[in-house]
Amino acid sequence: MTIKEFAKLLNISAATVSKVLNDSHEISAVTKKRVLDLAEELNFQPNPNASSLRRNKNKTIAIVIPEIANNFFSKAIDGIEMIAQQKGYHSLIYLTHESFTKELGIVKHLMNGRVDGVLASVSLETTDFSHFNDLLEKNLPIVLFDRVCEEIQTAKITTDDFHAGYMATKHLLDSGCKKVGFLAFSEVAYACRKRKEGYMEALKEQNIEVDDSLIVNCSNDMITNFSMINNLLKKKKKVDGLFSSAENLAILTYQICSELAINIPKDLKIVSFSNMPMASYLSPSLSTITQPAFEMGKEAATMLFLSIEKPRNNYKDVFTEMKSNLFVRNSTKRLFLK
Amino acid sequence: MTIKEFAKLLNISAATVSKVLNDSHEISAVTKKRVLDLAEELNFQPNPNASSLRRNKNKTIAIVIPEIANNFFSKAIDGIEMIAQQKGYHSLIYLTHESFTKELGIVKHLMNGRVDGVLASVSLETTDFSHFNDLLEKNLPIVLFDRVCEEIQTAKITTDDFHAGYMATKHLLDSGCKKVGFLAFSEVAYACRKRKEGYMEALKEQNIEVDDSLIVNCSNDMITNFSMINNLLKKKKKVDGLFSSAENLAILTYQICSELAINIPKDLKIVSFSNMPMASYLSPSLSTITQPAFEMGKEAATMLFLSIEKPRNNYKDVFTEMKSNLFVRNSTKRLFLK
Repeated sequence: MTIKEFAKLLNISAATVSKVLNDSHEISAVTKKRVLDLAEELNFQPNPNASSLRRNKNKTIAIVIPEIANNFFSKAIDGIEMIAQQKGYHSLIYLTHESFTKELGIVKHLMNGRVDGVLASVSLETTDFSHFNDLLEKNLPIVLFDRVCEEIQTAKITTDDFHAGYMATKHLLDSGCKKVGFLAFSEVAYACRKRKEGYMEALKEQNIEVDDSLIVNCSNDMITNFSMINNLLKKKKKVDGLFSSAENLAILTYQICSELAINIPKDLKIVSFSNMPMASYLSPSLSTITQPAFEMGKEAATMLFLSIEKPRNNYKDVFTEMKSNLFVRNSTKRLFLK
Repeated sequence: MTIKEFAKLLNISAATVSKVLNDSHEISAVTKKRVLDLAEELNFQPNPNASSLRRNKNKTIAIVIPEIANNFFSKAIDGIEMIAQQKGYHSLIYLTHESFTKELGIVKHLMNGRVDGVLASVSLETTDFSHFNDLLEKNLPIVLFDRVCEEIQTAKITTDDFHAGYMATKHLLDSGCKKVGFLAFSEVAYACRKRKEGYMEALKEQNIEVDDSLIVNCSNDMITNFSMINNLLKKKKKVDGLFSSAENLAILTYQICSELAINIPKDLKIVSFSNMPMASYLSPSLSTITQPAFEMGKEAATMLFLSIEKPRNNYKDVFTEMKSNLFVRNSTKRLFLK
C-alpha cells in the first residue's frame, strides 16, 4: 500500500500522513492518533526505499573541514563516520585548506544535491557566511562543529573554549609564569576569540594587565607565523609562558625554541590545544588542552541525522559545548631550582 | 563555431576532430595536420564547458585511502589537491578505515559515475581486488599510490620500498644492532612485503639468518599489535633493534618502551617509516625513512589527469618508484659507553 492509498482511507492528504510518520509538530494530536491507530491496525509501513528515494536519494553526507594534518579533525571524522556507518551513509570529506575561495567552491558544488546533509568547520579566511545560508535555504541540513560562527542559524557543536582558555592560562600562572603570551590561530574565528577571552579572564583574576605585545595573531601562513613567534621569543625575558590555541603553533614553537636554544620549561612554559597522540613522548612532553574530538564528531553527526530524518523540527538553537581537558605534562613543569 | 560545423569545413566527422584535439593516436598524422592547421587559421577552440559536459561531467575525482591520522596520507592529499586545483577539479576523500567491506561499499558507490577518476591506496584487509577492476571496466580511470597491488592493471606510484627496507636495516646493523626485528604493518600488502624483502636482504648481506620470532606481523587491530610488540620487547635481550614499517607502530613502540622502562637508543634502537613533523622533537628524536608524500600525491594526480584527458592511451604499465630518505636521529644513536 502506498502512502497515497493509505491517506485515502482516512480522507486526508498523503502529506499529512507523511508528516505524522515523521513526527511533525504541525499535525494535531487527534489526527496523529487516527493515522497511527490505522497504521497499526493495517500493519502499514511505508516502503523505506521509496521514502528514502524521495527524501535522501544519496545516502551521503559531506564533511567540510579546513585540514586533515590535524589530530583534532582526524579523530572528529572517526566519530562522524561511526555514526554515519550505523545509519548506512557514506561520508565525503572536502578540504578547504583554510581558503574562503575553496570553501565557497565546495559549498556551491554541494548545491547540486549530491549529499543529504553537511557537517562543516569553517575556514580561517571566512568572514562572509552567506554560502552556508544558501544551503540552508535549499533545505539542506548543516551542522557546524568546532569552528562554528554566530552568523549561521543552525545546530552547533563546540568545546568550552572560554573555560579551556581560562584553565590553560591559569595553569601557566599557577606554574610560576609572570608574562604569559597567547598564540591566536585567528583574530576573527569565534572559537579563538572565546579562547582569548578565557585567557584575558585568567589574567584579570590575578590583576595582570593584558599586554597586547604578548598576543600573536597568527593565520594560515606558517612562514609569517614562524617569524612572528620567533620575534616574540627572541626578545630576552619578554615572555615566560605561552598559551597556544592550536596544535600546529605549538609545533612551530618547539622548532623555534630549539633554534633559539630556549629551554622548555625552564625559560618558557607552554600549554597548547592539541589532540596529538605523541604529546607524552615529545621532548619535553607537551601539556595540552585536549578536546573530546571523537565525541564532538559523534554528537555533530547525531544532530545532522536528526535534521535529515526529522527536517521539520527546528535545530537552530542547538548549541552544545563539550568539555575539554587539561593534561599537565613537562612543558609546564614548575622548577624550584634557579 | 561548434566542432560539428568545424568538421564540416574539412569534410570529416566531428568525432575525428574531437580525437585530434584530444591527441588520439587513432588519427593519422596527415589528418591531424589538416585539423590543427585549420584550427589555427580560424582560431578555433571548442567550448571548454561543452566538451567538459560531455566528457567529465563532474569535474570531481575521488581519493580512496585507508586513514587520515597518518602524516603520509595527509601530505599526499596536499599534493593531489594542488594538481586537482590547477585542473579545476574538486576532490572527495573517502576513508576505508582499513576495512575491505568499506572499500567495497565506496567503490560500488563510485560506480554511479559521480566522479571522473579515482586515486586509491588499498586497505590492509583487501586481498580480492575485483571491485577496482570493475571500475576500470567501466572506463573510470584509476591510479594507485603507496598501497599498490599487482592484481590491478593500472598506473601505480609507490616508493622504493625494497631499497628503503634495506637501507633502514643496514643502518641499524651499522649502528651496532645484532638482533634486528621487523614490525610489518601487514603480512600481505605489496609495499610491506617489499620492505620486508629489503630487511632480509640487509641481514643476508651480513650473513645474519632471518629469525622469524623477531618479525611481528601487525594488522589494523592496535590492541593486538600492542600485545605482540610488548611480548617481543619484554623478553630480555631478545631484540636490540627494530625496523618499523609504519608510523603508528613506532608510536606504539615508544609507549611500550616507556612502560617497560626500555631505554631508546641504549637498550633498543628504532627506525621507522614516518612523515611525522614532530619526529625531531620526540624523546628521543626518531630516525625515519621518510617518503616523498607530497611529490607522490602530485605524481599520482598528474597520472590520473593524463588518464582522464587522454583515455585512449594505455597507462597500465606505468610503475613509478619514488625515492625515500633516511633521516638519522637519536633513536638509532650508537653509544660507545657501555
